[in-house]
Amino acid sequence: MSAPLPSALLERLRAIVGPRGCLEVEADQAPYLRDERDLYRGRAVAVVRPRTTAEVAAIVTACAEARVGIVPQGGNTGYVGGSVPGEDGTEVLVSLSRLNRIRDIDALNYTMTVEAGCVLAEVQRAAREAGRLFPLSLAAEGSCQIGGNLSTNAGGTAVLRYGNARDLVLGLEVVLPDGSVWDGLRRLRKDNTGYDLKQLLLGAEGTLGIITAAVLALHPLPSAVATALVAVPDPRAATRLLATLRSASGDQVTTFEYLQRRCLELVFAHIEGSADPLPRPYGHYVLAELSGGGEDGALAALLEEVLAEAFEAGLALDGVVAASREQRARLWGLRETVPEAQKRAGACLKHDISVPVSRVPELIERATGLVEAALPGARVVAFGHVGDGNVHFNLSQAHGSDPEPFLARGPDVARQIHDLAAELGGSFSAEHGVGRLKRPELERYRGGVEHDLLRAVKGAFDPLGIMNPGKVVDPPRR
Amino acid sequence: MSAPLPSALLERLRAIVGPRGCLEVEADQAPYLRDERDLYRGRAVAVVRPRTTAEVAAIVTACAEARVGIVPQGGNTGYVGGSVPGEDGTEVLVSLSRLNRIRDIDALNYTMTVEAGCVLAEVQRAAREAGRLFPLSLAAEGSCQIGGNLSTNAGGTAVLRYGNARDLVLGLEVVLPDGSVWDGLRRLRKDNTGYDLKQLLLGAEGTLGIITAAVLALHPLPSAVATALVAVPDPRAATRLLATLRSASGDQVTTFEYLQRRCLELVFAHIEGSADPLPRPYGHYVLAELSGGGEDGALAALLEEVLAEAFEAGLALDGVVAASREQRARLWGLRETVPEAQKRAGACLKHDISVPVSRVPELIERATGLVEAALPGARVVAFGHVGDGNVHFNLSQAHGSDPEPFLARGPDVARQIHDLAAELGGSFSAEHGVGRLKRPELERYRGGVEHDLLRAVKGAFDPLGIMNPGKVVDPPRR
Repeated sequence: MSAPLPSALLERLRAIVGPRGCLEVEADQAPYLRDERDLYRGRAVAVVRPRTTAEVAAIVTACAEARVGIVPQGGNTGYVGGSVPGEDGTEVLVSLSRLNRIRDIDALNYTMTVEAGCVLAEVQRAAREAGRLFPLSLAAEGSCQIGGNLSTNAGGTAVLRYGNARDLVLGLEVVLPDGSVWDGLRRLRKDNTGYDLKQLLLGAEGTLGIITAAVLALHPLPSAVATALVAVPDPRAATRLLATLRSASGDQVTTFEYLQRRCLELVFAHIEGSADPLPRPYGHYVLAELSGGGEDGALAALLEEVLAEAFEAGLALDGVVAASREQRARLWGLRETVPEAQKRAGACLKHDISVPVSRVPELIERATGLVEAALPGARVVAFGHVGDGNVHFNLSQAHGSDPEPFLARGPDVARQIHDLAAELGGSFSAEHGVGRLKRPELERYRGGVEHDLLRAVKGAFDPLGIMNPGKVVDPPRR
Repeated sequence: MSAPLPSALLERLRAIVGPRGCLEVEADQAPYLRDERDLYRGRAVAVVRPRTTAEVAAIVTACAEARVGIVPQGGNTGYVGGSVPGEDGTEVLVSLSRLNRIRDIDALNYTMTVEAGCVLAEVQRAAREAGRLFPLSLAAEGSCQIGGNLSTNAGGTAVLRYGNARDLVLGLEVVLPDGSVWDGLRRLRKDNTGYDLKQLLLGAEGTLGIITAAVLALHPLPSAVATALVAVPDPRAATRLLATLRSASGDQVTTFEYLQRRCLELVFAHIEGSADPLPRPYGHYVLAELSGGGEDGALAALLEEVLAEAFEAGLALDGVVAASREQRARLWGLRETVPEAQKRAGACLKHDISVPVSRVPELIERATGLVEAALPGARVVAFGHVGDGNVHFNLSQAHGSDPEPFLARGPDVARQIHDLAAELGGSFSAEHGVGRLKRPELERYRGGVEHDLLRAVKGAFDPLGIMNPGKVVDPPRR
């Protein structure tokens, strides 16, 4: 070949996806090259936008032959820099956004088959139209794509009931790092025929292959919902109330979110139209939701009954059960606007940690003590999916203070909080993943035997290390 | 070393587990060397019975250094010869039965930590005593061990509601093929820190390492149960009734088992005390069970309401809802004694297949036609977990006929039935696994890219191929 490698590769890529599918001008590429949190800005040989699995396979084959790194990208809404290329401009970014057909809905089998580029909200809507529920739900659902959700094993607010993204998948179609296609699009609930390869790809953040399509497991669309905001004396009472509610309802608890008083105060201060639904302030709250069959009234009565017993037992201090759809939306609004309110309140440090549900109270207590010592004046804003042990232990700068010294302390405080989570049997990344940002944490907390295994798996799938290079782990040296 | 290898290794094994932990005499070894179905009879260097994870690690290290194969064994109740050694007597059998402590129950976190050798029924009992449900339930539960259940990803009758064994595990402790120990005993519901290694080990049938302990996810103990036997016009109506019942109950359907009339007739003929609970015979039945919170009465009323609508819609012809615990036990007895009744009726060919729920009717219809052509006079006895698409499509010899020619046709008929399942997007092994018996099927139906991936994973974990050799897949040649 007389032409230098990148231009030969570029020519091949253009031939695969057509000129409109290959973005080579910086201005066109820009939105693909920076991450959601603006932590990284990369460069790329090209941004290619295939429309079919065959095109993805051809792209990967071309890159593999040229030994050029590939960065798969969905909605690019991740928090750990997993979907943007490095700074040296040697990688090809593959955007899955045009691979976005819903291939099939099988209502009787409670499944649907979708391509990676389908926006999550579209997947939810299509399921709903078929009388089914696709329960994955998260803040970015209007723009994130299902391929990215599966590659990062997305969580969200319904994990307690329906599991993480990986629990909602029956089959996958994947383009492997050598360009071959694994057709694992099975629609089966029972299939014991060898290792569960799909579970390796789910949550692999695009480092083992590119998910191009998936068979999703659907659930019945609940006909009844009951929602309450409950004031509790402390986090310990919240975890006990959760256990009680799970048992009493026959596991119909869909959501169980914890909120410190400070979360609500930030919302009242920064979000227009928000108001305290209870007559006086309390230190700790829970947003609890049941869903199931039958009618709203029966489920609300059940929830009220459990709460009445909780008041008796001292597990609850006050509460309100939503009496209308509007009231339910207002209660949810208090939880959903916490991140926005915190953003408006100034600089913020975020920690996406999880521990066993039974250790959440100790985590919150000890982490708060640790922050008070390390960052005097910082405001702890702890909330999250306590139903599955996932606490967003966030910190806001002291009111009116300088953000710079506060943010400069970030890495040290994060280390202390992650060490504490590890001590309590927990995780430094409950739902956001590893990506590029948390590779040092992966080595620190999942080192030794586990890290060696992770690398061995990477090496088995991607010996050349060309699939999303620099994310999660590297293959073993050859 | 002057001693030949096996005796040096034997000495080392004796030192690790003590003389009582090392069975060297043929009579002592015998029960460990033949499988449940008596398909295989193997030989072993020794049968070792470690009491701790450290002992397992020492055994594996010794075997790895001597390049000697290791066969892990739990309750030895599997159907595909996965837990017995080969015939040449070169392998060491590791029985996990003495590694059987319940390490921890965390009711607030809905988890328990158990060692591999715990008998499933003991695990269920311990959970129940803590006010929790461990929902895995299957015929062998009085003798099978949890380590084997997890290694084979056991299914059973509650998969529709609670998933397979792999869906009930949060963490694992595993001795790897080089003797190192992976401590992945995390008790977390959210943990996105690298590839989900535990899902690789679950269902790997002991070919990637030895599971020594696990964190199991528990569920609330249901306070209410409602059970019905329903006559339906055909399998299509059964699948539609299932979809309706899932929606109407808010997914509280725990069991949905299909039975052909012939299954009941075999039970009536061979099982003492059995009787038809309905006034006249029908062609097809469903055993359906709901479970949840609240009281039995409310759930039974819900079930009756859905069945009343099903009668209106022509999806059900007749039915009985159990009015007492005794009646429930009698209905369950009809389903649970089918395998025993079939055994007493003479020679039998079994097929553990699955398809999408929506294709079960076509599977039963076409497989029946296929058998009528291939084995005139054979009796189709189709039943199973239709709720998750898993049909036990079994055949009994014609009444009073010679079993030999019938059984001789087994492999050919199995091939035709597996081909049909594959054509319908199904599996040749829904819950029994691959083991030694179904390796040819694995190559036939999961060949090409998928089989290469399976072997690559095997090679990454066990490059020497010493972990349960000859089961599932071999590592790539080095």
